[in-house]
Order: sequence, then C-alpha cells, then structure tokens
Amino acid sequence: MSELRKDPVTGRWVIISTERRKRPTDFQLESVHVAPDGTCPFCEGHEEMTPRELLVYGRNGSSPNTPGWTLRVVPNQFPVLRVEGALDRRGEGLFDKMNGIGAHEVIIESPRHEDTLASMDERAVEQVLWACRERVQDLKRDRRFRYMIIFKNYGAAAGASLDHSHTQLIALPIVPREVRDEVDGSRLHYETKERCVFCDILRQEATDGRRLIAENADLVAVAPYAARFPFETWILPKRHQALFEEAPRQEYASLARMLGDILRRMNKALLFPPYNLLIHSAPVVEPAGEYYHWHVEIIPKLTKVAGFEWATGFYLNPTSPEEAAQVLRDIRI
Amino acid sequence: MSELRKDPVTGRWVIISTERRKRPTDFQLESVHVAPDGTCPFCEGHEEMTPRELLVYGRNGSSPNTPGWTLRVVPNQFPVLRVEGALDRRGEGLFDKMNGIGAHEVIIESPRHEDTLASMDERAVEQVLWACRERVQDLKRDRRFRYMIIFKNYGAAAGASLDHSHTQLIALPIVPREVRDEVDGSRLHYETKERCVFCDILRQEATDGRRLIAENADLVAVAPYAARFPFETWILPKRHQALFEEAPRQEYASLARMLGDILRRMNKALLFPPYNLLIHSAPVVEPAGEYYHWHVEIIPKLTKVAGFEWATGFYLNPTSPEEAAQVLRDIRI
Repeated sequence: MSELRKDPVTGRWVIISTERRKRPTDFQLESVHVAPDGTCPFCEGHEEMTPRELLVYGRNGSSPNTPGWTLRVVPNQFPVLRVEGALDRRGEGLFDKMNGIGAHEVIIESPRHEDTLASMDERAVEQVLWACRERVQDLKRDRRFRYMIIFKNYGAAAGASLDHSHTQLIALPIVPREVRDEVDGSRLHYETKERCVFCDILRQEATDGRRLIAENADLVAVAPYAARFPFETWILPKRHQALFEEAPRQEYASLARMLGDILRRMNKALLFPPYNLLIHSAPVVEPAGEYYHWHVEIIPKLTKVAGFEWATGFYLNPTSPEEAAQVLRDIRI
Repeated sequence: MSELRKDPVTGRWVIISTERRKRPTDFQLESVHVAPDGTCPFCEGHEEMTPRELLVYGRNGSSPNTPGWTLRVVPNQFPVLRVEGALDRRGEGLFDKMNGIGAHEVIIESPRHEDTLASMDERAVEQVLWACRERVQDLKRDRRFRYMIIFKNYGAAAGASLDHSHTQLIALPIVPREVRDEVDGSRLHYETKERCVFCDILRQEATDGRRLIAENADLVAVAPYAARFPFETWILPKRHQALFEEAPRQEYASLARMLGDILRRMNKALLFPPYNLLIHSAPVVEPAGEYYHWHVEIIPKLTKVAGFEWATGFYLNPTSPEEAAQVLRDIRI
C-alpha cells in the first residue's frame, strides 16, 4: 500500500506510491549527451561572447577576458534581475510590487565544453564550490539582498539553455517562499526541542541506514524520508553550520568528492539523467545560526510534474527513498 | 526592467521578466493532437477495460458498464491512494507517516476519443462539472477525507498518460500545503480587513481592466497579477462562495460556457497547448465560508520549471499578465 509521509522540516506531505512503483528502468530517460559546439559562449577562446568576468581562476598573467583560465564567473547575458538602481517598493491598490533589483551571475565551471561535474577532477569541482562561496561573500555586502540562491540546471529537460557545464547564482531582495518555509520549520523545531532538525535527521539516518547513500568524514548523502522526486538526494554536512559560505575549507573538498561520487552513481543507475542541483543556505539577513543547517539537494529529472502537484504542493513519488538509496548505494563505480 | 510581484493571497513573490520577454510565438509549443486509438480504455465499447462505474450520465435503460452513456466516473485503474482500510497515523522516530488512504477517480468526459473541453458543446462540459460536484458531495460523507482535489492534465507534456479527455478527483486525508497557504492567506486578509481577498481582487480587476480576459453574468476570467506562468488564467465566480460543490446550478452552466471560450482562445493564440486545469475549493473540514472563494486555474504548459523554481518556490514568468490578457482578449473566436 502507498504511504503518506511528512517532511520533518517543512511539514510538506508526499505520497510514496507503491501502486505506481517505478524502478530505474521504468522511467522514460532523457539522457544528456553534450556534443561539441563551435559557437558556445562559455568555451575557452569565446570570452568576448560573454559580459566581462567578475571572478576568474587559473589565469596566470594573461589579460582579463582572454583564454588561459580554469573557471570564470560572468554576469548572465539575459539576467532575470539587474543590479543597477535603488530598490523601489510600491503598492498598486491591493497588490504589492518592487522593481527587479538583484544579481544574476553564471559560474562557467570549465574551459572545456564536454566537462561535467561527474567527469571533472575533484580539485576542479572544489574550485566551483569555492567560486560560489566567494561570490556570495561579495554580494552579501550589498544590503539590498536578502537571499542568494545557487543552482544548477543540467540538461535541457532540467531547464538548461546552454550545454556547457555552469552554475547560476541569483541574489534576491526577498526571502523566497520555499526557503521561508524551511527556515520557519527548522526554527519551530529548535524552539520545541532545542536541537537542529537537520542534525536530528543526520543522527536518525545514520542509525537507521536504509536511506543512506554515501558517507565521508565531513558529509552524509541520504535519500530524504519524504522525498518529492524519485532519486532525490540530499548531501548534509555533519558539522552544524547555517551558512554554506562559512563552511571550513576542507568541507568544500569533501563535498567536491561526494558530488562527483553521487553524480557518477546517478549516471550509471539512471543513464546520464538531466538534473537540478541546489544549495540551501540560511538567508543572509537572519540569525539562523542555531537552527538552520546548509545542505545540497540533487533532483534527477525523471518524472513530469502535473496538475495535481501544482494545485496542492503535494508530490507523488513513484520510487521509495529506501529503494532509491539501495540502488545508488549498490552501484560499483 | 523586470518586476517582482506578490500574490495577495499566498504572499508568494514572482519575477515578471521583461528582459526575457516572450510573446506567444516565442515558446517552443508542443501542440496536442489527439489521434484515434483503438485500444483506449475510456472509449465507448471498451467499458470492460476500466473498473466498474461509480456514476454515469446519459444511460437510458442499458446495463451498467456497457455502451450508451455520455459521461462515466470510474475508480482510477492505478490509484495513488486506496479507499479501503482505516487511517493509521504513525511516527517513525523523527518522522511522521500514515497509510495511503484516499480515493482516486476518473471522470471520462465523453464517449468519443477526439472530444476536448474546447470542442464539446456547453451542455456536455456542464455535465463534467456537475459530475465533479456529485462525486465531491458523495466523498465528503467519508470523515477520513479532508480535501478533494479536482484536476485535469491535458496533453502528455502536462502529465496526461491517456489522450482521451478526462478529469481526475483525489480525496486526501490531509489538507495539502498549497491549499493550506491559500486558505491561511485568505483568512489573514479577512481578519485584517473583514473582506474576502478574492472579492477584493475581482473588484480591483474589474475597475483596472488590464488583466481582464472575459466576463459573463456569473464569472470573470483574469490573468492574475502575480502570475507564475505565461498565460496562467483564473476564472472566479462573482458571487462569494467558499465551496465549488455548493455553487448554484446556473454557475456551472456559466462556467462551462466560459471554459469553452477561454480554451478556444488559448488554442488559437498558443496552437493547442497542453495544460493543467485545477479547481480550488475550501477544505471540507474547515469553516472557510467567510474568507475563501472557490475558483478555477488554467495553466498552459509553455515553459520548463527548473532548479531555481524548485529551490525557491519563486517563479520566473517571461510574459506579463497584462500582455497575456490582451492577447487572449483580442482573439476572435
């Protein structure tokens, strides 16, 4: 029989459906294959096709915006929000609006078109995480911004408009609703129990073991108890810390290793799936140090989200997290 | 410049992006074309391929589960929740779960494979709405259920697994999160202002006019101020009423006419788009009479939802509701 499960952080219910049970081979997989592309603006040698770089790694003496780099951060060519101007909040009768102030940046993860986070070496992935940290710390000084969201869309089915591996960073003048729910939920848990809910999850999952996917000295990867999507995976640091950008250096190295490991397992189990990767961190303006706990969420794009989910915020997951964890745990890579 | 807008009911912010502005012809449209299919379980003559009918219209004397009907309601062959058994709520350490008790039914809207809500006559669409009402009223007597969600996925891209036009009804033992947020938001508005927020929206939109799409004696169709999706359309009854299933009979006739009109406009403007249609109504267990207001939401499936939206609950809409309303208003059908 199917089960309804409640996420202990947000209180969101999901259906883990056994009637519509799906194993990896039951999905209509849209494998991502990146083909060489002579016109890609993110490739080395095409630096003039992007806005001017904000941050660059690996450049030894060459001029800005020329070849000879290992990672570049540039403003998004078609930003959803713009950094120039004052924040103007207004009413329109019943309605509230503000102008589209924010920042929208792109972390170009490698000079080579066909590299992916799964194929790049650990040091190169660590560099991506470090660049995210550096950009967040810089943007935090701008008092107009309340939240920085770091996310990656990999593959067209996951929303990527360019194949070349990249991560995006958007700085927002508001705290968005999903984040608000997570932060409020974790504060409520802390107020009742004087413990961090994510630390509690870590302890229970370590003992239980059924949803554990991988573990190293600093991090644990689990299939969350109330997973919304098949093969949804969370990577949590063992050490309590609300802010991604304040993690100690060795956690980025550990996370780079863990990310490569998990993504290679997914590639093998799910045949190079498109995916979304998200870094969840506390809002920059909020003293969430005690109760929030940064983490990474990876969501392979295997199912279509339909009317039922939109209408209700109530997800139907055809693969139990226990089964997904076992599949990923058992992969030999 | 882009604009951030706040939904007055839920408090959800969206970005209305002008930088990435999209007109109808800019979308990669996946038109829905329904081809005849000799193996469809919903076609007349294939009654033995579905579970036994729960409700039928248009049958004059013929036996149940045989041809000679205009509409059938049957249990879903692969239900996400099952109606048999007692509701069993349990803890699992930190986590909460319950068994998958609920109901999952399918309203087969027509005996003919190629009919759609846009092509069917008004009387046949009214019959679909009336069947939804009858089923909700029947399921409400089961005290285990707290919310009935009525939704339609049209076209594979919107999540439909069968082409034959149908609507689904799921009865849930919980009130799902999106509904919770809408109900809580409308109660908060009522507590502050002693007015229904949806009635306030209706009044402001009628005066403003820029987001109005269509209007008849009983209903108004608008592009919502903080639309999450391009061409998102809400149909609101003018008369305040929390519950869809308690609307007066003539409102179903009016809604049938309005739905046909809006869907034909969308077909012309957006070339037969896949869509999700959702009926929002108050939870059956809650005295929401004063502050909630039932309505219909139609969301054509024109964009992919990517990592940014999942992570933040913060939607990026590349078509302003004013522009979408004008396009739909100006269509001659």
